[in-house]
Amino acid sequence: MVNYAVRVPSVTSVAAPGRRLAREARRLQLLDLAVGIVSDVGLDKLSAETVSRAAGVSKALVFHYFPSNRDLQVAVVREAAQNLLASLDVDPSKTPDERLRAGVDAFIDFIEADPTTYQSVARGAGSDPALLEVFEETRHGVVALIAAAIGLREGELPPGLRLAVRSWIALVEESVLHWLDGEPVPRAELVEFLHRAAQHLFADPFALKGIAILNPD
Amino acid sequence: MVNYAVRVPSVTSVAAPGRRLAREARRLQLLDLAVGIVSDVGLDKLSAETVSRAAGVSKALVFHYFPSNRDLQVAVVREAAQNLLASLDVDPSKTPDERLRAGVDAFIDFIEADPTTYQSVARGAGSDPALLEVFEETRHGVVALIAAAIGLREGELPPGLRLAVRSWIALVEESVLHWLDGEPVPRAELVEFLHRAAQHLFADPFALKGIAILNPD
Repeated sequence: MVNYAVRVPSVTSVAAPGRRLAREARRLQLLDLAVGIVSDVGLDKLSAETVSRAAGVSKALVFHYFPSNRDLQVAVVREAAQNLLASLDVDPSKTPDERLRAGVDAFIDFIEADPTTYQSVARGAGSDPALLEVFEETRHGVVALIAAAIGLREGELPPGLRLAVRSWIALVEESVLHWLDGEPVPRAELVEFLHRAAQHLFADPFALKGIAILNPD
Repeated sequence: MVNYAVRVPSVTSVAAPGRRLAREARRLQLLDLAVGIVSDVGLDKLSAETVSRAAGVSKALVFHYFPSNRDLQVAVVREAAQNLLASLDVDPSKTPDERLRAGVDAFIDFIEADPTTYQSVARGAGSDPALLEVFEETRHGVVALIAAAIGLREGELPPGLRLAVRSWIALVEESVLHWLDGEPVPRAELVEFLHRAAQHLFADPFALKGIAILNPD
């Protein structure tokens, strides 16, 4: 771990870290409000105007933290993605296979909380380099979680397994997007399908060359 | 094969269908040229200017067929997508499993012919509703091909199998995009992995409820 003590700025006053924390807390407060607004009105309608009204602060203050409406929208998506990653990171005392299954369940929970926003953002992510970047970071985060579950660092994944994990994430994203459109199959069956897909893909000889860590048998 | 003799342009009214064919032939000729230009300079640099120079015709004529540079670019992607679907539609006398494997191989061949364009278009498709539409049409086309290979119409696919097929297509797209970035595994192994993934996913109880048509065993 980095020792943050050595980073305390000496130029102004000892209160600088406190001010920084206060700023960060205020930013998070506005962001939390913004996340709630998005699930009501959609990402496109989120603006400094709506946030300032909900927070009872000036629009100028919102613009101080988020220079444009687009910055605000991207910050909300990034915050949501971090919440998602946190929700996927389940009890490390469980087995890799249990964590995988719980992760799939948590992913669908997350999407179900605001399916409209997920659909519009996921289908249109290519329209905005900043959103593409958030999606890429999130996928990297999921790869790192899966690597950790099987006792590896993200950089230690064999190339075939890395490709299998990336391709499974794409499979999950597409499955859930497809499923949201009318829920053609029971949710529980979808979870089992995605879980079995991971068991199969990650234990494929291509991925593990015989190391079937995630295969429960 | 089309009989090009009937395409000889004629000015008189009785030749209206012939004129339509001549227009279509000229459009396709420009489109073929444009596809070649894209693999040299990239989709973004494709313009009426570059096509008119390559074809030795006026820019106005190119604009007559493609009202804007963006229309031209989308038409090229649509043409490429149709070529892709045609290349995936292999010998119907083969078994579904053989057709599936040959289809994976043909898909990778197609991407390898111009990986840069595929990467930029696939990663940025969300930026353009017209491109998103072409991608969606193409995925529909692939679903229909797979349905046909197992003796079903596209509309007859059970909901679980439809979801499995859609999710497999996403898995293939992501795998190939990931693989293009440094080709971390041998091409032949990638084909086998994607083929086995289809065998597994389409024969999953969720997808077929016991009808393991595509499973070779």
